[in-house]
Amino acid sequence: MHRLIVPASALLLCLSATGAFADEGMWTFDNFPVAAVNQKYNLKIDQKWLDRVRNASVRLSTGCSASIVTPDGLVLTNHHCVRDCAQQLSSATTDYVKDGFQVAKREDEKLCPGMQADVLSGISDVTDRVTKAAAGKSGQDFVRARDAEIAAVEKSGCAGKEDKFQCQVVTLYQGGQYKLYTYRKYTDVRLVFAPEGMTAFFGGDPDNFNFPRYDLDCSFVRLYEDGKPVKTPDHLIWSTSAPKDGEAVFVSGNPGSTQRLLTADQLESLRDLALPETLIQFSELRGRLIRFSSESDEHARIANDFLFGIENSFKVFHGEEKALVDPSLIAAKRAADNDLKAKVAANPALAAEIGDPWADIAKAQADYRALYLSNSMMEARAGIGSDLYRFARTLVRAAAEKTKPNGERLPAYTDSRLALLSKTLLDPQPVYPELEQAVLEYWLSKLRENLTADAPGTKTFLGKDSPETLSKRLAQSKLGDPAMRKALWDGGMAAIQASDDPMIKFVLATDEASRAIRKQYEERVSGPTDRAAQKIARARFAIYGTNVYPDATFTLRLSYGKVQGWTDNGVTVPSFTTYKGLWERATGQFPFELAPRWQTAQSKVNPNTVMNFVSTNDIIGGNSGSPVVTAKGEVVGAAFDGNIESLGGAFGFDERVNRTVSVSTAAITEALKNVYGDQSLAAELEGRSRR
Amino acid sequence: MHRLIVPASALLLCLSATGAFADEGMWTFDNFPVAAVNQKYNLKIDQKWLDRVRNASVRLSTGCSASIVTPDGLVLTNHHCVRDCAQQLSSATTDYVKDGFQVAKREDEKLCPGMQADVLSGISDVTDRVTKAAAGKSGQDFVRARDAEIAAVEKSGCAGKEDKFQCQVVTLYQGGQYKLYTYRKYTDVRLVFAPEGMTAFFGGDPDNFNFPRYDLDCSFVRLYEDGKPVKTPDHLIWSTSAPKDGEAVFVSGNPGSTQRLLTADQLESLRDLALPETLIQFSELRGRLIRFSSESDEHARIANDFLFGIENSFKVFHGEEKALVDPSLIAAKRAADNDLKAKVAANPALAAEIGDPWADIAKAQADYRALYLSNSMMEARAGIGSDLYRFARTLVRAAAEKTKPNGERLPAYTDSRLALLSKTLLDPQPVYPELEQAVLEYWLSKLRENLTADAPGTKTFLGKDSPETLSKRLAQSKLGDPAMRKALWDGGMAAIQASDDPMIKFVLATDEASRAIRKQYEERVSGPTDRAAQKIARARFAIYGTNVYPDATFTLRLSYGKVQGWTDNGVTVPSFTTYKGLWERATGQFPFELAPRWQTAQSKVNPNTVMNFVSTNDIIGGNSGSPVVTAKGEVVGAAFDGNIESLGGAFGFDERVNRTVSVSTAAITEALKNVYGDQSLAAELEGRSRR
Repeated sequence: MHRLIVPASALLLCLSATGAFADEGMWTFDNFPVAAVNQKYNLKIDQKWLDRVRNASVRLSTGCSASIVTPDGLVLTNHHCVRDCAQQLSSATTDYVKDGFQVAKREDEKLCPGMQADVLSGISDVTDRVTKAAAGKSGQDFVRARDAEIAAVEKSGCAGKEDKFQCQVVTLYQGGQYKLYTYRKYTDVRLVFAPEGMTAFFGGDPDNFNFPRYDLDCSFVRLYEDGKPVKTPDHLIWSTSAPKDGEAVFVSGNPGSTQRLLTADQLESLRDLALPETLIQFSELRGRLIRFSSESDEHARIANDFLFGIENSFKVFHGEEKALVDPSLIAAKRAADNDLKAKVAANPALAAEIGDPWADIAKAQADYRALYLSNSMMEARAGIGSDLYRFARTLVRAAAEKTKPNGERLPAYTDSRLALLSKTLLDPQPVYPELEQAVLEYWLSKLRENLTADAPGTKTFLGKDSPETLSKRLAQSKLGDPAMRKALWDGGMAAIQASDDPMIKFVLATDEASRAIRKQYEERVSGPTDRAAQKIARARFAIYGTNVYPDATFTLRLSYGKVQGWTDNGVTVPSFTTYKGLWERATGQFPFELAPRWQTAQSKVNPNTVMNFVSTNDIIGGNSGSPVVTAKGEVVGAAFDGNIESLGGAFGFDERVNRTVSVSTAAITEALKNVYGDQSLAAELEGRSRR
Repeated sequence: MHRLIVPASALLLCLSATGAFADEGMWTFDNFPVAAVNQKYNLKIDQKWLDRVRNASVRLSTGCSASIVTPDGLVLTNHHCVRDCAQQLSSATTDYVKDGFQVAKREDEKLCPGMQADVLSGISDVTDRVTKAAAGKSGQDFVRARDAEIAAVEKSGCAGKEDKFQCQVVTLYQGGQYKLYTYRKYTDVRLVFAPEGMTAFFGGDPDNFNFPRYDLDCSFVRLYEDGKPVKTPDHLIWSTSAPKDGEAVFVSGNPGSTQRLLTADQLESLRDLALPETLIQFSELRGRLIRFSSESDEHARIANDFLFGIENSFKVFHGEEKALVDPSLIAAKRAADNDLKAKVAANPALAAEIGDPWADIAKAQADYRALYLSNSMMEARAGIGSDLYRFARTLVRAAAEKTKPNGERLPAYTDSRLALLSKTLLDPQPVYPELEQAVLEYWLSKLRENLTADAPGTKTFLGKDSPETLSKRLAQSKLGDPAMRKALWDGGMAAIQASDDPMIKFVLATDEASRAIRKQYEERVSGPTDRAAQKIARARFAIYGTNVYPDATFTLRLSYGKVQGWTDNGVTVPSFTTYKGLWERATGQFPFELAPRWQTAQSKVNPNTVMNFVSTNDIIGGNSGSPVVTAKGEVVGAAFDGNIESLGGAFGFDERVNRTVSVSTAAITEALKNVYGDQSLAAELEGRSRR
């Protein structure tokens, strides 16, 4: 789930060339190639269509996309986008992940802890402001000046309306552009419907990123304000039928991250260091979690969502690694780098302005390699999934940062971020001490292994403890209690320093070391890299023009394409699956087992209903839950995956084999009516009534 | 433990150049550079010295090296070389791995299951025979013709003396030479002494491959024949004092495997495929085993040895991977390839004979990449550590192979191998169903993941089962009973086909698929590669002469060097550690805790006794347990590790930083006398008495 890939042949952005016009690109709404797309697919989409789709597109703070599908704030997304919410609402006796979630009436809809929904309401260009603020600076000074200006822009952009809006400066084209995105935010998001985990994720990890596929990976949440459903007249129209083979479709959502504009040297660092080390780390954690889950039903339940996330990320990174070890990919990228370099060199004025940022990036790679593991263990991935550690670090850092001027804080603690940060911290959410201990033990043992036993960092984090003894003590933290978190959040540094909670004390003792490695990393790696990337972006605009799309940044993008299967190694994969295939694939054994109500539902379900379908849209992780929209503005599906061939989409797009995988609204309608018996929800979707 | 490394600068074998004469090389005893070594170190070693060392050098079938140190067949090796034996002799109530093993009298010495000790007694050249047999053949035909000739040579070499001798054809220089090694074999090897696991492996995985180090990684076994200790007059002299800093020392043992003669294309496949995939697999298995071990003391006990092996291998492969991603290493190797190619091209006669084997190897890499995972999952690493699977596969294959002529069998089942094979199969050894189930579940889930759920191979191995259900059933196999294995071994295919044991039935149902992938692999990968490598070896001999050493092959080699620390990044590491440092490093927390008898022994032990030391000898995994011998023929230590800088020794040797780590005989003597109170064993070592 979540992500997408791209082979070497496509590393040059096709639209900047005059050749084939592939279905490539995660376009910003203010730079969508309307004319070209209309021409290619013989359509007439216009600004009104774009505005309507944009107004109905939703970003979930939990890392997903979604869409408003009724006038009463009902939002369609994937099941795996609310999996965490369902887990948090469950208990040892009620398992909404396993058994699904349904309500008899709206009053039973339940708040998803920490979830915020954002609808993009405006985009403005702030490139000049941000660029000027950081001009002439380097290393950490560059990072600080830029971040301070971003904090100021965000604060002033939403001044006086912070309760309903969130402002975010988005860095596009690796710093070639900075745009202020203003969002209408909704902080009361409630779970309405989720199918059983085994229905949403039929085939489990083995089928993940594969097609044909038979997943009802859908769910509904609803936006609330002042205790009432939000009125949302600008919703998409629900289609009860599937799109046609070959039909043009659009995906509007928030692709999380791509690396298509990185230099060849940066890709080599990914191939040789970041991806292998991450795969190694995730594999061991995965192994521990699988065995943990096998110990009891309750262990299986409490580790379910975390294990799902680790396995999903593992599969994505494994696919990316496999794409990068194909020598042709980096060779093509190096050729593209050299092409741009040569064109810059041929333009003396530009060359004087740009210098040699490629050399700066190459130089930063040595520092990246030297600092990667320390930064990963002590800062970037510290705590790797431990809620207790996250709570404590957020509390400790917020207390310290809030006393500083806005422009001098760590970016996560600027005024524009504090509201969502406090929501994710303070909303009630269960904490499982046994799982916490297992995860902390894993993290601390890897910290010792990667830093080595005698390293100063290891001594700071472990002292005379072993990972086993320390994790046991830390898991006894009482930060699982939201009232305690609230007291520490409100009490600030005085309350925190007075706390005898073991996790608070641990973070107080280690945060200086974490900040120190972060500082080194900014000074030697991210600062020089970002500065150089900004220069390359300017060179790219100057040489190739602006009719290109930026790398993904978990902000709203629109991709276009058509419903279409693919052929690879002589095997043709069709565009659609139907319900018929679900029962054919079921073996009764995990993860190919049917939920109880599906075991008896076969006669009630139309076997020819399209269940999942593939299309040529260019998406990636973060796009999960994105509406698949027709040229008429109807929603016909929710994107939930890419095929395995697409697991290289991080680096480029190959229309021949890269595919988006979606669950059809037709299948959802059929299931709601004939399996879940939720006529009320079905009627709301079809616009026939409201409950 | 086990292995050693080498950076890029040394990829050209230094001895073939005229420059610096480094302490490089794992030399065969029949091609040792005696004169050069005597000159460099001002010594007078001679053939007599070589013969004496060779006659006292022992290969253990469990993958280690050792040496005879008294006239009564007493053999010194590492603790980690008998760890498996100690585990097999233990039970839920007696844990020799944790608590150590000592005997009051010789009658209490215990047979190590499956262990055979080999002493090399003769080497003869059979290159012509083997080469001619395979001449003109390619693909699997090449493999078969070569292997058939090897089987014939081995059989005739030991004809009539098979009960006491084992014959093995050793492939040297990637097929440039074939030599018949004749070994005096000892099949009754008994455990005499082992310290506590925490004493032998103080510092555990965090300290593994590091120095300074404080490990008493030693043990003793004794060779028996006809129920009595073997008389071994050709033993090494035990030294009760440590070598001096700078003193010349030799390591005589069986380095397992190096890849110094591989082409750059082969190294890229290691870097991009074999090593990352192996690291990923071992990491998940490691995670599962760590969690398994945390579930109970008994789980910790039964998984101990296997987890140790996985963690050790992981660290070795991780070090190798880090060495290979340094771009200078493969670049240097490619330059060396090109140098040899150019020299071949400049010699028309040689060029006509050799052709372009580098191109053949490059071509085979595509097939290697295509078949690697299937071959790994279904054949090469099938069962990954499951004893029940190993038993069943050995029984099934032996029954099938024994009906064929010797020359047509799989190599592991030729007449010369059957004796040891049956010993490793039939010797009593405990089987732990819970551990078996965990390991089998891991393997089968990775098989499904790597082959994909719908692959024919997955269907063959899993049928309609899940990895969870199938592993549970297979773990109920009764093959843990040695009498049942004996009955099936003796009963042959008829008995096997009549068996209703679930593991036997599983292997019967899957072995065809395993053999099929093996056949493909030989036809497309190992056949073409071996054939090409043989040609490259001939080119290398023709151009550079024969004064070079072959890659390691787990056969007897001699390396030379001196006791010496090293300096890296401005930090100088001294040559020695002493007992004093052991108590300083102990924290009381695993893995830095002292065994009970050591906690109270500090006042009884001379703190200045050298515990571990480093030397410049070129070794690698398989050398574990090798005697460290002085020019006088005294044994002063047992090699047990390399430093972390050496984890690249697979690809080359860098004398500046590569170091062998050994436990001193002085420390062993001190411990036997003053901690373990084993005066009898100490006296035997010092030649003062015999018990």
